[in-house]
Amino acid sequence: MKAHINRIKELDLSNYGNDFLLTWKKNKKELEATLLLAELLRKRHREGKPNLVFDSGLAVSIFRDNSTRTRFSFASAANALGLAVSDMDEEKSQVSHGETVRETANMISFMTRVIGIRDDMYLGEGHSYMREVSAAVQAGYEEGVLHNRPGLINLQCDIDHPTQSMSDLAMLKNYFGSLDNLKGKKIAMSWAYSPSYGKPLSVPQGIIGLLTRYGMDVTLAHPEGYNLIPEVVKLADKQAQVSGGSFKTTNSMDEAFSGAHIVYPKSWAPFQVMEERTSLLKQGDQSGLKDLEQSCLANNAKFTDWECTEDKMNLTNDGKALYMHCLPADITGVSCKQGEVSASVFDRYRKDTYMEASYKPFIIAAMMFLTGLKNPQTALDKLNT
Amino acid sequence: MKAHINRIKELDLSNYGNDFLLTWKKNKKELEATLLLAELLRKRHREGKPNLVFDSGLAVSIFRDNSTRTRFSFASAANALGLAVSDMDEEKSQVSHGETVRETANMISFMTRVIGIRDDMYLGEGHSYMREVSAAVQAGYEEGVLHNRPGLINLQCDIDHPTQSMSDLAMLKNYFGSLDNLKGKKIAMSWAYSPSYGKPLSVPQGIIGLLTRYGMDVTLAHPEGYNLIPEVVKLADKQAQVSGGSFKTTNSMDEAFSGAHIVYPKSWAPFQVMEERTSLLKQGDQSGLKDLEQSCLANNAKFTDWECTEDKMNLTNDGKALYMHCLPADITGVSCKQGEVSASVFDRYRKDTYMEASYKPFIIAAMMFLTGLKNPQTALDKLNT
Amino acid sequence: MKAHINRIKELDLSNYGNDFLLTWKKNKKELEATLLLAELLRKRHREGKPNLVFDSGLAVSIFRDNSTRTRFSFASAANALGLAVSDMDEEKSQVSHGETVRETANMISFMTRVIGIRDDMYLGEGHSYMREVSAAVQAGYEEGVLHNRPGLINLQCDIDHPTQSMSDLAMLKNYFGSLDNLKGKKIAMSWAYSPSYGKPLSVPQGIIGLLTRYGMDVTLAHPEGYNLIPEVVKLADKQAQVSGGSFKTTNSMDEAFSGAHIVYPKSWAPFQVMEERTSLLKQGDQSGLKDLEQSCLANNAKFTDWECTEDKMNLTNDGKALYMHCLPADITGVSCKQGEVSASVFDRYRKDTYMEASYKPFIIAAMMFLTGLKNPQTALDKLNT
Repeated sequence: MKAHINRIKELDLSNYGNDFLLTWKKNKKELEATLLLAELLRKRHREGKPNLVFDSGLAVSIFRDNSTRTRFSFASAANALGLAVSDMDEEKSQVSHGETVRETANMISFMTRVIGIRDDMYLGEGHSYMREVSAAVQAGYEEGVLHNRPGLINLQCDIDHPTQSMSDLAMLKNYFGSLDNLKGKKIAMSWAYSPSYGKPLSVPQGIIGLLTRYGMDVTLAHPEGYNLIPEVVKLADKQAQVSGGSFKTTNSMDEAFSGAHIVYPKSWAPFQVMEERTSLLKQGDQSGLKDLEQSCLANNAKFTDWECTEDKMNLTNDGKALYMHCLPADITGVSCKQGEVSASVFDRYRKDTYMEASYKPFIIAAMMFLTGLKNPQTALDKLNT
Repeated sequence: MKAHINRIKELDLSNYGNDFLLTWKKNKKELEATLLLAELLRKRHREGKPNLVFDSGLAVSIFRDNSTRTRFSFASAANALGLAVSDMDEEKSQVSHGETVRETANMISFMTRVIGIRDDMYLGEGHSYMREVSAAVQAGYEEGVLHNRPGLINLQCDIDHPTQSMSDLAMLKNYFGSLDNLKGKKIAMSWAYSPSYGKPLSVPQGIIGLLTRYGMDVTLAHPEGYNLIPEVVKLADKQAQVSGGSFKTTNSMDEAFSGAHIVYPKSWAPFQVMEERTSLLKQGDQSGLKDLEQSCLANNAKFTDWECTEDKMNLTNDGKALYMHCLPADITGVSCKQGEVSASVFDRYRKDTYMEASYKPFIIAAMMFLTGLKNPQTALDKLNT
Repeated sequence: MKAHINRIKELDLSNYGNDFLLTWKKNKKELEATLLLAELLRKRHREGKPNLVFDSGLAVSIFRDNSTRTRFSFASAANALGLAVSDMDEEKSQVSHGETVRETANMISFMTRVIGIRDDMYLGEGHSYMREVSAAVQAGYEEGVLHNRPGLINLQCDIDHPTQSMSDLAMLKNYFGSLDNLKGKKIAMSWAYSPSYGKPLSVPQGIIGLLTRYGMDVTLAHPEGYNLIPEVVKLADKQAQVSGGSFKTTNSMDEAFSGAHIVYPKSWAPFQVMEERTSLLKQGDQSGLKDLEQSCLANNAKFTDWECTEDKMNLTNDGKALYMHCLPADITGVSCKQGEVSASVFDRYRKDTYMEASYKPFIIAAMMFLTGLKNPQTALDKLNT
């Protein structure tokens, strides 16, 4: 653990800042520090050593969408560091944009060290809301209204899902032995069939937006029309070139799986559908929304063969690619009639998906530590026991 | 307090396990340790001494039915031991059976030390759900997904209500001076009239399932048809024989009260009605449910004389039996027109019922301590101050 | 800080008691101690020093009306002192009057150190509910059911809003340099137009009920008919005479603003309307309630010129009165078409209103400290670091 602490102290974190909103706004040193710290906190937890670096303070969570695992990961992380969770339930206290956001963000922050936000339902909304909150607490801090600048953590927005993608990266680092070992490994980030509709784009976008920076061969696969936000796809392409990896898109799940070391089959709604949905929602067009859902489900139904079956797995490297999922997965014959993955494949990798999820509380704790403490590198000494 | 600690250390707790689901699955030594520890924690609390045996960690509560007193007892107990409560609200995050239970149980447990569950509404559901959760976290622990095996505490199921019955036992031990003094004491666990419908069976079942083990003369009284789960009644009978006490059932409240040292008059719905209700609920038969409620209330109304009045109290030992209730009681002329107990009787024993309730946070804390800590007997040394 | 501690120790707090319900039930020494302690806790917080005077225990909040800022202030204060918040959500567990209040108050208090209640919607209800809770926990403590007498804090009732008015007083003390400097300062507590209806009276009542005790010239302004509770107005008048200040009422906003050092323009519903509303609510008269709302909104609309504009501000002392508001304000063209304050005025004082709000967590913490600890003056030594 001493080695972890020393390495983190060496890294230049002077621009880390108080927000963790998009992985691609953090440089590689900053991501490395986040991973190392998560590993350190996890190791200490497993040895029964406390990680209480805050003596008190609130960790405020704002969930604008349902959540179980992220909610509990956030609560666990906060508690492990010594913070108390206070949920800002949007039914209890209405939040909106503009002046109200500025005011509310300050009003909840007088003794708050971390704010975590999940706002992933509407394209063009989540990330921009988080930036509003960030600007508000930054100004409050600079004006002296707030004594601490709360760290702000994206718990899933319309663009990125950094606590998920960083947990996935922690899993991959551990699975393959090091970040260096990820170079040249092929990952298939593939759309998969689901009987439900309107799943956010943030997981696939988060994956291609992060893993293309580690020299991996990233293939994004989806049926025609199931596009992601174009800017994120362009970014992934550019990052792959810089990192010495590659980035490809295809409309064939088989092509993506072929020779892959890792597969990540997961459903999402087409970017264009999400845009239309947001627009209909803003207009309050209920019948338009119902029509959209019907046509979208009907379109999904054309692609039920986009399922991660044993046959598909046989296409991967030695037939033994690591199967990943952010959970809950739509498992054929288990959680639905027909879904993203067959029961036998899921069952073989069930423990791996649980392990993948087990990194999240520690990734969030590392983000809290680095964004919410005034001098995180100095505070590392508290963990040197 | 040293004496309490020494006695608990002497007791063989090697099979205590990580669950407290049914009192009759714990041997007498394990129950004694639970009581002694609750007394120790209570005594220390009253002396202003902290009981913070966990340095951090979550205590997750899952309430599938409304609750005030158990909710606050759970929160108090968790806080007293150093844990933070995280409510798993079923409206926020849907929980069901099978794969979903396994997954969710693990996802909420990465840094969780205790899980408390209340699921008492449907016969055949609550206890089996708790066993699913138990199996899930046990497997997760054995697979290495979870570093700690969270303790699992039944906060009321369809079969038993161990935090209530153990609090009642703590009250009785204190009231009569010792567990030994309970031998030969007569308790009337009696049905009583209530204008409401569908009250769970877990309190009377918990009482007869626990107190028959302490050599008491337990009489279960209810109008014809208001049966409890047959297996629990059989168990009570068998236990009474082993412990040298007795167990009787009667359809006469007077007979039960006659000469009793303790009376516990409380309403419940007939076992058969609860079974039918569960079946109608599963079929979603709303009109069937309404009919059932009507016929059940009409049947209840035949037994309004099953009220704990002064006359009834006069039948008890010296007219001075201890009146017990898990609260809230239906008090005639106070909380309803006609109910379980007359206002004058309740008022005379009001303080006693509050004292009875006051044991619950400490009983729950003792269960958390014994199921959630890796080496509870070693941890006792932290309480030796 | 040593000076603060010494001064608080000198003050006679023997009658402070365990409740903080109405500022006018506290003498000036008790109010001074509360302010000084809030300042001390705030200063220590800003220096990064912990204020953990409780080692464990619950702070129970009961909100019978929506709240963001008070909820988070309460949570922050509790956490800063070492308590864990447990919300008593009235949807989760129904609370009412009489026997139920007595019982519930005790059931939630076995390990509770502080209870905070917000109940401001119905005239004649909030304060009387708080007194019921107070009597219940006092009796429980005296009977030995509760080992600690929980402190009880009014987080806004139908009569007073002491956490707000005391925060406002802390702001004014800091703004003008001392409490002594408030003598002779003119404050305009003025009604202002709002497009919403049914706002509580507790803020204006709290302001006139507190600031008239500090030798200020307090002018209460509102359109004809928008009266406050008569008893509070009489009290303000009497207090002003005692303190050497003055108290006036007027139906002219201009008169109130004229020469004022401080303005507090805020909407409220007329006392008589609130009385009628309570009565209609008790009768469950939905159509009567709708009619009342319509007629009240129509009446409000006659007074849209009661807006704190630049012109109005120019009437104040040097045109530079301090603008105060409990937030959220109805800002013309920002949060509504036409409201309590013009955008330019609000914007100039926005930071001041945020600072005003920033005192609240510390005021609440001071109240928790003084009502919830057995020997608060002795406990001050823990803050002498």
